Amino acid sequence: MYQQRIVIDGLQYCNWNREYFQTLKASGITAVHATAVYHETARETLSRFAEWNVRFEQNADIIMPIHSMADVEIAKTTGKVGIFLGAQNCSPIDDEIGLIEVMRQQGLLIMQLTYNNQSLLATGCYEEHDAGITRFGKQAIEEMNRVGMIIDMSHSAERSTLEAIDLSSRPICISHANPTFAHDARRNKSNDVIKALTARGGLIGFSLYPFHLPNGSQCTLEDFCQMVATTADMVGIEHLGVGSDLCLNQPQTVLEWMRNGRWSKAMDYGEGSANNSGWPDALPWFSGSSGMENIYNGLMCQGFSESEAGQVLGENWFNFLKDGLAPQRKS
Amino acid sequence: MYQQRIVIDGLQYCNWNREYFQTLKASGITAVHATAVYHETARETLSRFAEWNVRFEQNADIIMPIHSMADVEIAKTTGKVGIFLGAQNCSPIDDEIGLIEVMRQQGLLIMQLTYNNQSLLATGCYEEHDAGITRFGKQAIEEMNRVGMIIDMSHSAERSTLEAIDLSSRPICISHANPTFAHDARRNKSNDVIKALTARGGLIGFSLYPFHLPNGSQCTLEDFCQMVATTADMVGIEHLGVGSDLCLNQPQTVLEWMRNGRWSKAMDYGEGSANNSGWPDALPWFSGSSGMENIYNGLMCQGFSESEAGQVLGENWFNFLKDGLAPQRKS
Repeated sequence: MYQQRIVIDGLQYCNWNREYFQTLKASGITAVHATAVYHETARETLSRFAEWNVRFEQNADIIMPIHSMADVEIAKTTGKVGIFLGAQNCSPIDDEIGLIEVMRQQGLLIMQLTYNNQSLLATGCYEEHDAGITRFGKQAIEEMNRVGMIIDMSHSAERSTLEAIDLSSRPICISHANPTFAHDARRNKSNDVIKALTARGGLIGFSLYPFHLPNGSQCTLEDFCQMVATTADMVGIEHLGVGSDLCLNQPQTVLEWMRNGRWSKAMDYGEGSANNSGWPDALPWFSGSSGMENIYNGLMCQGFSESEAGQVLGENWFNFLKDGLAPQRKS
Repeated sequence: MYQQRIVIDGLQYCNWNREYFQTLKASGITAVHATAVYHETARETLSRFAEWNVRFEQNADIIMPIHSMADVEIAKTTGKVGIFLGAQNCSPIDDEIGLIEVMRQQGLLIMQLTYNNQSLLATGCYEEHDAGITRFGKQAIEEMNRVGMIIDMSHSAERSTLEAIDLSSRPICISHANPTFAHDARRNKSNDVIKALTARGGLIGFSLYPFHLPNGSQCTLEDFCQMVATTADMVGIEHLGVGSDLCLNQPQTVLEWMRNGRWSKAMDYGEGSANNSGWPDALPWFSGSSGMENIYNGLMCQGFSESEAGQVLGENWFNFLKDGLAPQRKS
């Protein structure tokens, strides 16, 4: 039964308000990884945390903050939607190694080393040259490992991603991206990356963002589930999850902030183009969080057992996060 | 037996390093309220937290961070010195109400509303006019009450202090100051303030900083204990603690930062003067944390029972903090 499952969406960036939280609750989802920042500095990140604290306070009847997987179990039991926060860039730590632990203490559970561009830590997927993990990046990986902050390479370039997998003493994730075998885009991941990631215990969350999918907004549920099945055949079901990249009810200005931050004077269109600069049309079978149940059923149509579909819909994320968020054991 | 007591120093700002932590441990002290910031902004405060995280990591065999009184009990059991952090000014929240909860989450357990000067929240003790708690201050008090961050008025002016006592729905503290009846200084507190504070369940920590004491560095242990005894007769023993204001091994530049921050072009001498601009000479009977045991014995010479001396040396702080640090119950 879908309703009894722990369902986790490995990435969303919706316009967070009570109405949307009610939609989430009604969808039966247990927990959501919500992006807190894209380009915000350490100081600006504190304001984002403050805004989330107000949301948690004002909507305490339907949502709750997640600091560990024990909180996810409480969310499931109490029928609330758990929210855990992450950053799609390393901007929250400025240039200071010690801010990794500070941000982790504040509740930043996951951090990407890059967002499309070169960062102080690694190279993003849209750069022409990928020089791999930087000097600061190597220390940041070690510190993230130590404090139990999950490394996410969704928006990173290939060499940087392979090096991060190798340098990290703990499994890392690609929270939201698809295999290039299904759709060849710079934001998607090669079989080499997916194999290396999963061989080290890592997790990939399949994205529902149309730019990451074969045939974009026309991608069918069957095509999506076929992509999951092929990946499962390649690396095993236990390394697979969903990171929908759902961005509901956001204005164009938010899309432009994601793509341009403060780094570009010219308009950068990211995965779009001058003629296609807006949000992509939603998938009819994933127009909101209730789409998770469609995927659950779709996977079973592809031959997944109910238990296997449940793993992909949340259980694998749960197990990955439970291990990864614990502080590193002293050797 | 002194060694079996929970001993808490309600304020220190020493030059924190391993050697000093070893001295603290040898002194038998259980926990220390350490000042993390004087004038630092929110962003700068994050760096102070990062520095403390390194100290906790590198000295984990002898010190541990305190987030609740349960941690103090662990410190006592394991023979480590617990450190809890506070701010002597409201600068860590910038101008943003939401940063109170953010800083509390980070481990800032206590915050003064002012440090000598007018702040965004209240008036400091060296201002000529005291207009009381500001509009922002009223909201900050309510928010500090809600999240369980202790309000400290040690460096605040009289009217602001009386208003804070009255406005706060929970007991507040004066972590380090003495009664003006013992030594009439602007940093010390009137009987009106001490009575109002304690009538509402608040706590005052007696200071060992020579500028706050009768006869300065010549103050005797007997004079100090007499001051405690007189205050106990006035308001009861259960509201009394020690906040030594011990500032060991700090250079003159730190004293100047405390007094001048970034607000003064001319040198401000605080409680000192142009002819007496340095750190005061230490009290021979309180030249370090082992002085706490001298006070314990001194109080018994003044007629305190062992149990009463134990209350003043730490138990009262423990009970006050245990109540005050818990998040506010919903009414």
